[in-house]
Amino acid sequence: MKKSTYANLYSRSSNTMKSSEIRELLKLLNSPDMISFAGGLPNPDAFPIEKMKPIVEHVMQTHARDALQYGTTEGHNKLRDVIARGMGQQYGAPQALSNIMITNGSQQGLDLISKIFLNPGDKVLTANPTYLGAIMAFQAHEAQISAIALDEQGIIPELLEDKLEYMEQRKEQAKFLYLVPTFQNPTGVTIPLKRREKIYDIICRHDLILIEDDPYGLLRFEGKREPLIKSMDDENRVIYLGTFSKILAPGFRTGWIAAHEEIIRKATIAKQAQDLCTNNFGQYCIFEAIYHDILFPHIKEIITIYKEKRDLMIDALKEFFPKEVRWNKPQGGLFLWLVLPEFMSALTMLPRAIENNVAYVTGEPFFPNGGGHNTMRLNYSFASNDQIKVGIERLSHVIKNVISENTGGIAEDFVSIP
Amino acid sequence: MKKSTYANLYSRSSNTMKSSEIRELLKLLNSPDMISFAGGLPNPDAFPIEKMKPIVEHVMQTHARDALQYGTTEGHNKLRDVIARGMGQQYGAPQALSNIMITNGSQQGLDLISKIFLNPGDKVLTANPTYLGAIMAFQAHEAQISAIALDEQGIIPELLEDKLEYMEQRKEQAKFLYLVPTFQNPTGVTIPLKRREKIYDIICRHDLILIEDDPYGLLRFEGKREPLIKSMDDENRVIYLGTFSKILAPGFRTGWIAAHEEIIRKATIAKQAQDLCTNNFGQYCIFEAIYHDILFPHIKEIITIYKEKRDLMIDALKEFFPKEVRWNKPQGGLFLWLVLPEFMSALTMLPRAIENNVAYVTGEPFFPNGGGHNTMRLNYSFASNDQIKVGIERLSHVIKNVISENTGGIAEDFVSIP
Repeated sequence: MKKSTYANLYSRSSNTMKSSEIRELLKLLNSPDMISFAGGLPNPDAFPIEKMKPIVEHVMQTHARDALQYGTTEGHNKLRDVIARGMGQQYGAPQALSNIMITNGSQQGLDLISKIFLNPGDKVLTANPTYLGAIMAFQAHEAQISAIALDEQGIIPELLEDKLEYMEQRKEQAKFLYLVPTFQNPTGVTIPLKRREKIYDIICRHDLILIEDDPYGLLRFEGKREPLIKSMDDENRVIYLGTFSKILAPGFRTGWIAAHEEIIRKATIAKQAQDLCTNNFGQYCIFEAIYHDILFPHIKEIITIYKEKRDLMIDALKEFFPKEVRWNKPQGGLFLWLVLPEFMSALTMLPRAIENNVAYVTGEPFFPNGGGHNTMRLNYSFASNDQIKVGIERLSHVIKNVISENTGGIAEDFVSIP
Repeated sequence: MKKSTYANLYSRSSNTMKSSEIRELLKLLNSPDMISFAGGLPNPDAFPIEKMKPIVEHVMQTHARDALQYGTTEGHNKLRDVIARGMGQQYGAPQALSNIMITNGSQQGLDLISKIFLNPGDKVLTANPTYLGAIMAFQAHEAQISAIALDEQGIIPELLEDKLEYMEQRKEQAKFLYLVPTFQNPTGVTIPLKRREKIYDIICRHDLILIEDDPYGLLRFEGKREPLIKSMDDENRVIYLGTFSKILAPGFRTGWIAAHEEIIRKATIAKQAQDLCTNNFGQYCIFEAIYHDILFPHIKEIITIYKEKRDLMIDALKEFFPKEVRWNKPQGGLFLWLVLPEFMSALTMLPRAIENNVAYVTGEPFFPNGGGHNTMRLNYSFASNDQIKVGIERLSHVIKNVISENTGGIAEDFVSIP
């Protein structure tokens, strides 16, 4: 059988699926000298290993017959219950057990929601730029993505409304709007309360569903927490996606969907055909970690660790980077967003950065409809404190050289972008 | 928002997906008096809990920083490697690392293979009856299933060939053939060597891919092991699906795909959009269980436990069941297959069985194109030894009553089906 025979057999969506740049870059992490600001990995120093040892032991001692068995497709009921109540206590968005489904990470939540709502060619709205994993999930279901520009307060409501009105005139229906309202991936920006209310008002008036993806919401270093859009959701339009990957550990691979019970029922049937259930052992470990009050004190420790890293990275950027480069200072989460001068390409520059043993993610793949050639995402959670300073210095040399080459050696004279 | 609004938004495939009968039946397991031969759960007595305690502890002591982190989409390399070599040692089908991908149970293998090969309306061939989870996965991708009759030696090659020739005349292309060649779910039948060779010859001549799903192959109580069709696969046409759920424990939710590296690459991209990676903690636990030589001695123990249960169930069937009912004696696996008199409906009888605190799975849903109203699947792995005898006796009363009602009380006179 020749390879070409497979090619004849592959599905349409498979032939259009591409491996992501982030994924390819993650392979670089294996080089010992590489300092990577690519990827979105939590720091292993932020795993509660010592506290989890007795928890894992307890699961094996007391719950092994259940934890090692298949679970129900909806997930471990004790974990669903504690999440349902936690959504009330933490977020003012209380849920019933029937509103919660456990998933194999929140990426599976994105996939299941796509599966139950999207036919090929359906339209989906996102921020521009937006989380690459969401773009991949929607494109794997052959959706058309329309991306709405964001500013330092997230997606711009007037542009969203304008887009929806235009679509309605053309008798087009968007299936849903996807947002990461707090500490967005990739930009780190957070939508403030007033704009959240405006967005919720718009989705109600245009009869739209919102997917509120919230992996970083609890990782706030400073400032006031903004309420979830889910907490305003008296019309059952919001599908909330949560995960334990960033606040406990990704290795248990456990996230959840909180939504109207009819959507949970549909997603459950889809998940049954997809993988029967999420790993039960991890669900038991996470439930016991919450029940024995390890999770929330631990989140405080993560916040301390990541706040220091963010500050170190921003200090290093100020110290080493040329004035032509702009960045933001998010109040939490894992990422900074950098804008280079227009004439620069983060992609063209990447091989030079890698030669100098520093890696980042180019911004372009996060723009579903193209653009962003001169942007990059820097992750500050994974690298060690020492690496952050060294890595930013390495990256500054690469950037300064590119600027210098492009401006005849007079980088100082380059007009700074406002 | 009214519920009807969701209904307008759901995808085509979501509107046709149905919750499975097995799934609904699994809920019955919670009733304390119920004896369930439904489901396909391993017995918790067959979990190596004491042996896994030090393994899990070792993972937390030594590998926690990696085991609690995200893994690569392809899976934990040490586990992939030991599976690749094990496929050679155990099955005479050696693989390279690049041929192996870890999945969230083998159900995800079925889904990913469906995702990369199937467009809506595509044709898939299966045995008749076949594993319900496979039917669900193929239907979730809107495939059309053509099912080929099986006998006590599995799918009948002449019927397969005839079907393929008919399809070729009509310019129809089947994307793949799906089989569980050893201790099939639901019937327990095994395809012998000669027929395996015939089937492989047919798929080569008709340029077809075969999915060889093999969750039970190592659970052989007696008789000679048949070689995998994958071991004959010099044309790279076989996609093998394996799982640790039945031979170690399902709670770690870990299976694998073994296939040509191009298929693995496609499946990896599809999995990346679907859930990023399989839970890393479970992968580490399973690798360490293999590496510290717990797995294969443990399989011997499972075989002893399940052989006794199979024998107990068959003894009870002989003791209690009326002569009108036929069953088989598989040499391994988890299931027996029962054929009732034609006039009986396993579905109509089910509520009466449940009233009498005994549950089974009706055969009908395993027939993709309908039929099998008078068949049922009995699982002997999950119930305790005492429950097996009591449960079969309870079920015999229900069956005898139905026969008696339908034959004017003279069940003895009913013509036995050959």
